[in-house]
Amino acid sequence: MDSRIVKNRIRKIRRQLKKQLLDCLIVTKPANVTYVTGFGGDDSWAIITRRSVYLLTDSRYIEQAENQCAGCKIIQRTGPMTKAVATLMKRLKLSQSAAVEKSISLAAYDALKKQLKARLKTVGNIIEAVRSCKDPNEIAAIKKAALIAAKALEQTVPYLKRGISENELAGMLDFQIRKLEASNSFDTIVAFGSNASRPHHQPGTRKLRKNDSILIDFGVKYKGYSCDLTRCFAVGRPTALYKKVYEAVRHAQAAAIKMIMAGVKFSKIDAAAKEVLRKHDLPLYGHGTGHGLGLEVHEEPAVSGEAKGKLQAGMVLTIEPAVYIPGKLGVRIEDDVLVTQNGCKILSCDCPQLHLFST
Amino acid sequence: MDSRIVKNRIRKIRRQLKKQLLDCLIVTKPANVTYVTGFGGDDSWAIITRRSVYLLTDSRYIEQAENQCAGCKIIQRTGPMTKAVATLMKRLKLSQSAAVEKSISLAAYDALKKQLKARLKTVGNIIEAVRSCKDPNEIAAIKKAALIAAKALEQTVPYLKRGISENELAGMLDFQIRKLEASNSFDTIVAFGSNASRPHHQPGTRKLRKNDSILIDFGVKYKGYSCDLTRCFAVGRPTALYKKVYEAVRHAQAAAIKMIMAGVKFSKIDAAAKEVLRKHDLPLYGHGTGHGLGLEVHEEPAVSGEAKGKLQAGMVLTIEPAVYIPGKLGVRIEDDVLVTQNGCKILSCDCPQLHLFST
Repeated sequence: MDSRIVKNRIRKIRRQLKKQLLDCLIVTKPANVTYVTGFGGDDSWAIITRRSVYLLTDSRYIEQAENQCAGCKIIQRTGPMTKAVATLMKRLKLSQSAAVEKSISLAAYDALKKQLKARLKTVGNIIEAVRSCKDPNEIAAIKKAALIAAKALEQTVPYLKRGISENELAGMLDFQIRKLEASNSFDTIVAFGSNASRPHHQPGTRKLRKNDSILIDFGVKYKGYSCDLTRCFAVGRPTALYKKVYEAVRHAQAAAIKMIMAGVKFSKIDAAAKEVLRKHDLPLYGHGTGHGLGLEVHEEPAVSGEAKGKLQAGMVLTIEPAVYIPGKLGVRIEDDVLVTQNGCKILSCDCPQLHLFST
Repeated sequence: MDSRIVKNRIRKIRRQLKKQLLDCLIVTKPANVTYVTGFGGDDSWAIITRRSVYLLTDSRYIEQAENQCAGCKIIQRTGPMTKAVATLMKRLKLSQSAAVEKSISLAAYDALKKQLKARLKTVGNIIEAVRSCKDPNEIAAIKKAALIAAKALEQTVPYLKRGISENELAGMLDFQIRKLEASNSFDTIVAFGSNASRPHHQPGTRKLRKNDSILIDFGVKYKGYSCDLTRCFAVGRPTALYKKVYEAVRHAQAAAIKMIMAGVKFSKIDAAAKEVLRKHDLPLYGHGTGHGLGLEVHEEPAVSGEAKGKLQAGMVLTIEPAVYIPGKLGVRIEDDVLVTQNGCKILSCDCPQLHLFST
């Protein structure tokens, strides 16, 4: 990764560390490690000091780290991670004003304290908060991921035929993504008919029927960045209820998107979508109206009724209102949106909008 | 899931809790939640008391939980998980002798303590230790996953042709898995030529050449259980070095598998594989020789030089020695093995052994 981009991120993070009188942050959350080093592998931690950024990894990832992490010092550990951290911190004389991320497991935290033989401060959300407003290159990567997702879905539409199973359709979509030289950002959800009333349905052997409905929730990862989209289709003749619900969800999403602008409260976005469904006398969904996305498919901020805070320019959010009627249907429409000073840009606008069609 | 199976597991776990004078265990690790409830979704915790098992989940998963969790009490939370746990524990008057798993994040642990207004004990590895020896139905599921993997790979072999990219080959294999009504247990690794020297290479745009080598590391998930296999192929004429390395790794794996039997130390298995590579003057791999697998792709125990303890009948392990020569090649052969009293059974023996072939 371009080392200037990483340097800029580190500058923002160091500013926060300084405010909290910390010399050093031990970064353990995988996406945060990627954010501050450019490293795309697993099982690695980073340490941000006043002068440098260190990546602690093992032999499996040394080649990859050397290719990806121009701006940081790579340390190959052989024993446990916590021991490697303690050794480095002792060498740098840093253990007095160091902190570790609160997302660390309790087991790792205990092991780290034991190795450091010192109290260890904990901090939450420092890097997550910086990550929530995206760099231009991050926005470009998410937009490209959404473009690939749109193409892959378009190439999958011809397979929406009677007799195909949920599993097979999911597999065909994933294959199209791979053919476009990208990968999935999470396990593709394909749900036919009433299976779609379970928001996180796992694809199974259920086959597509003559008159049927389809929900596809999927994401593409491109250069480490994810998009997250949901589209619904009706094959053959949709029921009157399905049509009604579909239109209501579409209006709910449009109402939420219309509200988006820097400075608006998260809870207002959530309320706008739900207000439409209430007007249509439809049940409200139990999940949030959206979430941040980037290096993780779910990241800060949450767009929900309880969420505190306001939209900021540069945030990238999903907007995904839904209606679930167990035993009958599920409709969710999800797009990815960039918050700007005066409104928003839909990053996933190229994704097929042929929501309802007949065969 | 059959509630007798779950009951049997809970009995073993309660025995451990009793030894540690605990009335109640808060289970937070997803695979452990699945193990004690049968629930296959996310974002849910379980609580094991002396009398009952509770699943705390949210509206997205209620339908799924009702289908999957016959033996336990399902509680739908609306607010934060830690609050729901505190409310339940207060109702059950349990907070005095309760413990939480050490794999919990520090942030969640702090939130839980705050909600409970009590000190909270922590325990590690209670459920993981029980999980390391598999029930017959777990072994059957892993064997079936390996069988599906073998079929999927067989159906992919015809696509091993000049010009296909790593991404496309990975996508084709994944598609075959879906067509067999199963899913991936982790992101498929396809590495051509020298890319295979990075054990966790991510598939890219590199195309297969006339004389080339292929490493495929992939897994299938079936009924929640994973297999984990690696196969290597040479297309066209392999180099003399590749042939030499390939045969050495095959012998190293055979030597390790030959040692497997209940009661043998993990470190001996590791040593047996490495001894063969040393004899061939080849560099030793930096990762372990194997790991447990089941509900997770990597779980207890670790098969490495540093691992303490001995093999037990019922453990299912990968055996995956390798040779990596950066810039040149990588060869890893990985099979899944069930430890028995007198030896072992290879669960992945149906996976194509056509390791070297020409086009």
